[in-house]
Amino acid sequence: MKYLRSAVFCCLAVVLVLLLQVWFRQPSFSRCPGWFASCRERSYLFGYKIFEKGSRTEQAKLVFPQHPLDPLTFSEIARVHALVLNSSISLAEGKHAKLIRKVGGSKPNIFLHGVSLEEPDKEDVLTWKTGDPMLPRKASVILRIDVAIYRFVVDITHHIVESVEPHHGSGTPTLNFDDMNTASALPLQHTEFLEALKSRELDKEEVSCIPLSSGWYNVKEEEGKRLIKVQCYYAGGTSNYYMRPIEGITMVVDMNMKKIVKFIEHDHVPLPKAEGTDFSLSAQRGPMLKPLNTISLEQPDGPSFSVDGHYVKWANWEFHVKPDYRAGVIISQASIRDPETDVLRSVLYKGFASELFVPYMDPTEGWFFKTYMDAGEYGFGLQCMSLEPLNDCPRNAYYMDGIFVDADGKPYVRPNMLCIYESYAGDVAWRHTESPISDREIRESRPKTTLVVRVIASVANYDYILDWEFQTDGLIRVKVGMSGILMVKGTSHDSIREAAEANEELYGTMLAEKTIGVIHDHFITFYLDLDVDGTDNSFVQNKMIRKKTLDGTSLRKSYWGVQQLVAKSEDDGKVKLSLFKPADYVVINPKKRTKVGNPVSYKIVPGKTAGSLLALDDPPQIRGAFINNQMWVTPYNRSEEYAGGLYVYGSHGEETVSRWTRRDRPIEDRDIVLWYTVGFHHIPCQEDFPVMPTVTESFELKPTNFFESNPIVKTYPTYEKDLPQCSFSI
Amino acid sequence: MKYLRSAVFCCLAVVLVLLLQVWFRQPSFSRCPGWFASCRERSYLFGYKIFEKGSRTEQAKLVFPQHPLDPLTFSEIARVHALVLNSSISLAEGKHAKLIRKVGGSKPNIFLHGVSLEEPDKEDVLTWKTGDPMLPRKASVILRIDVAIYRFVVDITHHIVESVEPHHGSGTPTLNFDDMNTASALPLQHTEFLEALKSRELDKEEVSCIPLSSGWYNVKEEEGKRLIKVQCYYAGGTSNYYMRPIEGITMVVDMNMKKIVKFIEHDHVPLPKAEGTDFSLSAQRGPMLKPLNTISLEQPDGPSFSVDGHYVKWANWEFHVKPDYRAGVIISQASIRDPETDVLRSVLYKGFASELFVPYMDPTEGWFFKTYMDAGEYGFGLQCMSLEPLNDCPRNAYYMDGIFVDADGKPYVRPNMLCIYESYAGDVAWRHTESPISDREIRESRPKTTLVVRVIASVANYDYILDWEFQTDGLIRVKVGMSGILMVKGTSHDSIREAAEANEELYGTMLAEKTIGVIHDHFITFYLDLDVDGTDNSFVQNKMIRKKTLDGTSLRKSYWGVQQLVAKSEDDGKVKLSLFKPADYVVINPKKRTKVGNPVSYKIVPGKTAGSLLALDDPPQIRGAFINNQMWVTPYNRSEEYAGGLYVYGSHGEETVSRWTRRDRPIEDRDIVLWYTVGFHHIPCQEDFPVMPTVTESFELKPTNFFESNPIVKTYPTYEKDLPQCSFSI
Repeated sequence: MKYLRSAVFCCLAVVLVLLLQVWFRQPSFSRCPGWFASCRERSYLFGYKIFEKGSRTEQAKLVFPQHPLDPLTFSEIARVHALVLNSSISLAEGKHAKLIRKVGGSKPNIFLHGVSLEEPDKEDVLTWKTGDPMLPRKASVILRIDVAIYRFVVDITHHIVESVEPHHGSGTPTLNFDDMNTASALPLQHTEFLEALKSRELDKEEVSCIPLSSGWYNVKEEEGKRLIKVQCYYAGGTSNYYMRPIEGITMVVDMNMKKIVKFIEHDHVPLPKAEGTDFSLSAQRGPMLKPLNTISLEQPDGPSFSVDGHYVKWANWEFHVKPDYRAGVIISQASIRDPETDVLRSVLYKGFASELFVPYMDPTEGWFFKTYMDAGEYGFGLQCMSLEPLNDCPRNAYYMDGIFVDADGKPYVRPNMLCIYESYAGDVAWRHTESPISDREIRESRPKTTLVVRVIASVANYDYILDWEFQTDGLIRVKVGMSGILMVKGTSHDSIREAAEANEELYGTMLAEKTIGVIHDHFITFYLDLDVDGTDNSFVQNKMIRKKTLDGTSLRKSYWGVQQLVAKSEDDGKVKLSLFKPADYVVINPKKRTKVGNPVSYKIVPGKTAGSLLALDDPPQIRGAFINNQMWVTPYNRSEEYAGGLYVYGSHGEETVSRWTRRDRPIEDRDIVLWYTVGFHHIPCQEDFPVMPTVTESFELKPTNFFESNPIVKTYPTYEKDLPQCSFSI
Repeated sequence: MKYLRSAVFCCLAVVLVLLLQVWFRQPSFSRCPGWFASCRERSYLFGYKIFEKGSRTEQAKLVFPQHPLDPLTFSEIARVHALVLNSSISLAEGKHAKLIRKVGGSKPNIFLHGVSLEEPDKEDVLTWKTGDPMLPRKASVILRIDVAIYRFVVDITHHIVESVEPHHGSGTPTLNFDDMNTASALPLQHTEFLEALKSRELDKEEVSCIPLSSGWYNVKEEEGKRLIKVQCYYAGGTSNYYMRPIEGITMVVDMNMKKIVKFIEHDHVPLPKAEGTDFSLSAQRGPMLKPLNTISLEQPDGPSFSVDGHYVKWANWEFHVKPDYRAGVIISQASIRDPETDVLRSVLYKGFASELFVPYMDPTEGWFFKTYMDAGEYGFGLQCMSLEPLNDCPRNAYYMDGIFVDADGKPYVRPNMLCIYESYAGDVAWRHTESPISDREIRESRPKTTLVVRVIASVANYDYILDWEFQTDGLIRVKVGMSGILMVKGTSHDSIREAAEANEELYGTMLAEKTIGVIHDHFITFYLDLDVDGTDNSFVQNKMIRKKTLDGTSLRKSYWGVQQLVAKSEDDGKVKLSLFKPADYVVINPKKRTKVGNPVSYKIVPGKTAGSLLALDDPPQIRGAFINNQMWVTPYNRSEEYAGGLYVYGSHGEETVSRWTRRDRPIEDRDIVLWYTVGFHHIPCQEDFPVMPTVTESFELKPTNFFESNPIVKTYPTYEKDLPQCSFSI
């Protein structure tokens, strides 16, 4: 009886432990540790499904930081908010009073524009180990007290506001949802706009307005204000209102005043029709395309990676993943285990999409200003919507939530804002078969499995799919996929011939009757703090140079060899890519060499990219000067993380990587940061209507004499016996 | 009783039909047609496994052509051989006698160097439909009668030799296995070489020699001969003999005479050690890397494509696949069904890897000549070894055999030389989620499934993975992956410092002690006979040109617009890519427009590529002049298929796309062919030792105003209920 009771107690204890495990959200599904009944059940247990019980917010409240780079938790944000509120009130009453009291009444109005972890100093993070006491937790808070802008650093652990930096230069913070919602809502209470709707016979209920960052064009009366432009669309007959622009009306909203300060009706163009614009499943009429047979990435044993809080271990890789309101996702401390020494070696201390620049190519009234900086203006992470399981990420994906903060300081959860999954597309990691000529039988091939970390930001119409893909051979591929909806312009014409006869310049492609897909570019600049086997690195261009042979020494006249250019200072780190002036771009650790003497290194392998065609002195390009080169290299400086500046909204371009590098600081044999831009020129086509098939570009970080040899030789091929039996449960 | 007998008879008949189906190799696994017990069983029944019964040769004998582009069958080859033999003998006895009788005795020696389908005229193929009588079957035969080279066209249907073209210019045919085997075997009977082995204390049994095409260097005494260079490697202690070069010995073989005509010992370098060079599974010692959990592409319902002979149907695509001894694989008549009209519209009449140029960058005695043209010299298809199921292609792959012909005219089967499979990597075909700002709930996402056709050519050490990937949105991605083994050079040094002290130029990277990975390039030139919605097309460069705004008209100073350049003649079709002079490269059908008036078109989207750095007057570059531009456009001409010429071995470069285009023929509004080159510069790194992780480059053919709108809007998302249950059968 006693034994029975003990047994029941034990069982209950085990159940409790398991429930806590699930509840506290530490889905460490390292492979089959043996203590669990069946591996096969586990993968699903720790998939996204488990989080359906209890609200996300309740779950999020229970999370506590486990790693110095973990994002702020609910309770930390609450403490930050309290500290910031108190401090702001005293600021408003003290020496800053004059600066602040421009708008409000007697009480200062405080709005948060960005709350995120203030990361500990790099050296502290690098020396911290699991089990060590947590490093002091700090927050960086961008806030506005009426019109004055500050960055607070709050020490949560010691419960103090550590520093207050008022912002003096140009530029304002990332929009918060309060700004965006206000701007979107104002037109529908604005008399002139309502009258315009009436004259166009449009139903107010079907109108959606969107806030469009207004750039900077050196207009005196706009200085010092937080202005945004608003244009509206018509959802009548379609969920895809972006395809029905109410062309010709632009409103200017003063976001501090929360009012429309300018109403411009610069054109009167009929609305494009709704027909053919709706891509939602429920709106499809007529026969659907015959579906393909089911194809599925299956892992009956569950995935091979573990996620402990925000720390991921997979194959030979370990790294930290952090959802971020501005960057979307930040990858930190990516390190790879050397198969020869079993030592974890650092590769990338921090990598993320630092800024996006999206200039449109139409200089007319309603369009000239459309030169977006999506990360710094809208918050790339804030715009990461919940991923759609099975469609945005495969079945075997693990999902992670983001915790963000609204303008009032309230934290909220964005569920499933990030996914992690193992991918296998049928590709080959390495192989060789031997031709029968040699009479030696070699038939070796190994399939390629990768690990993908994905977020998808829907910055209004556009959807950016951002993947960090890790390979077991040490390669990291960063991919930017683009889908979503084009930003289109209304026209009165129904064909390009009609437009040509009217002598109308289209600035784009006619996608359908009365609908123009305006030409534009996308530039995504990545911050890559590579730490190749240690922090102190050098940037080397291995230039490929044609060499002529000396007469009579060879029957060949020419060949090419490598000319090494070790970058001494920032000027040497500026790279404009050119097909006929090729180079390998390498980050070496000058202190570490392989056995035969090659410096240990990673190279950045550019993909197909694009450069800006705008004039350098055009205001958008002054702000977007960070893409004037495809690469830059800067010395590590914790205040230089955003290629277009921290306060990029409306900035004049004083704080860009282009300006910083003018100092030509030394970059040899020290902690350096590489900046690389993925660029696209986009002439829209009719296939992009009404929703765009995904277009993808990428670049790679590739080990280059980092290992003594191919690190994945000692792997097994796949055998039939390794593979599962699959069937439908019907 | 009578009924029972009938029933038994019926059963037997059904079994017979099924067996015949299997036996005659027409695995038309179109989706679940209902007459089969269970879809799930079928996919495996029609997978590669069914072909294990009976020899491949037996099966191949039973195949007969079903489509005018189907490759030659066993019986056709036999008939071709008989016809060619007779005709050759009468040639040798007739007016060609003088030309031929240079080597042999009284009887002419006839060697085949390439037997393949002589495709019917394009217009005939285009009008042919399933059910029509088969078009006359013809073969193109490259053969050598002693030293004289001919191309025969044999009409198999009418049992006659249709034409005999003696070859007069420079260059000789693709090597046959007889050439390669002879060249590899000769050194081991050559006294000087055997002595050299003895003096180096090397065991003859462990020596493998490989035939290395010797290029052309304007050396008078080499003219008119078929010479090849042979170098040898040592397999002692490793299966990877390529890593143990017997450096410093080069032999020249006269392939017509079948003898070594020159033995050069230009250096004496110690052999690199065997340790660390073997990548074969059986050779691995010590602990293996911990395997990842199984991940598998599963399709319990079987694939969604059907293969009828060589004709593939998948989703909205149809195309013909032909294994080819020279190109590896030829894709023909790729057409896509328009979802709006249900009409099959042509995209690509014919596409294949036309030539590969692989120059090494070491001008010294043993290396200067290494400037391979892998397709035309070695036969890219001949070097396609059998694929390794589960590792070279995933479990759900369908395999196709190649039928080739040896020097004696005997056909043989290369089993599993090509695979076709559906791929899903967890990616997104299109999507949009709506930000909460708009208050409109849109959460639509569709997963991306593609169809891959793959061959892998192992041209001695290197493995080229060639994929044609089809997307349902109309995009075709052509990918070239490279793995296999580096061509390395022996050195006496053990570190780069040692080499530097000895003032030795390495011409590459030291990969291990005494082992240099020599710098080289890879250029793969594709032949792309695009027929965009019909044969008559034009090539258009949509140049992206910076435009300045007029003062006072806009706050923007600049933007960019499109300047169309319709290529009138071949000069306009020559493209050198430049990042800062971008364009969309479009093949339009000038006679067809979308409803709003855009010309129907496909664009070619270059990937990251590379241009040659060799001097234009360097002999290898004269032969490789077909890569002097990244693109060329020529008028369709059935005799211009091989970018470097039909007889590229040892050619002087008179027959390249570069020469043809000098005529500057008109190319507007007619049947045109686009040539595009994928290029890589390869500075080897230690990770490439002893076997290279796959590196991949690609380009795309993308519909551009080809459809009226996104052709895959009417598709379903994936639901959990669609997915299978998987487990292990243990």
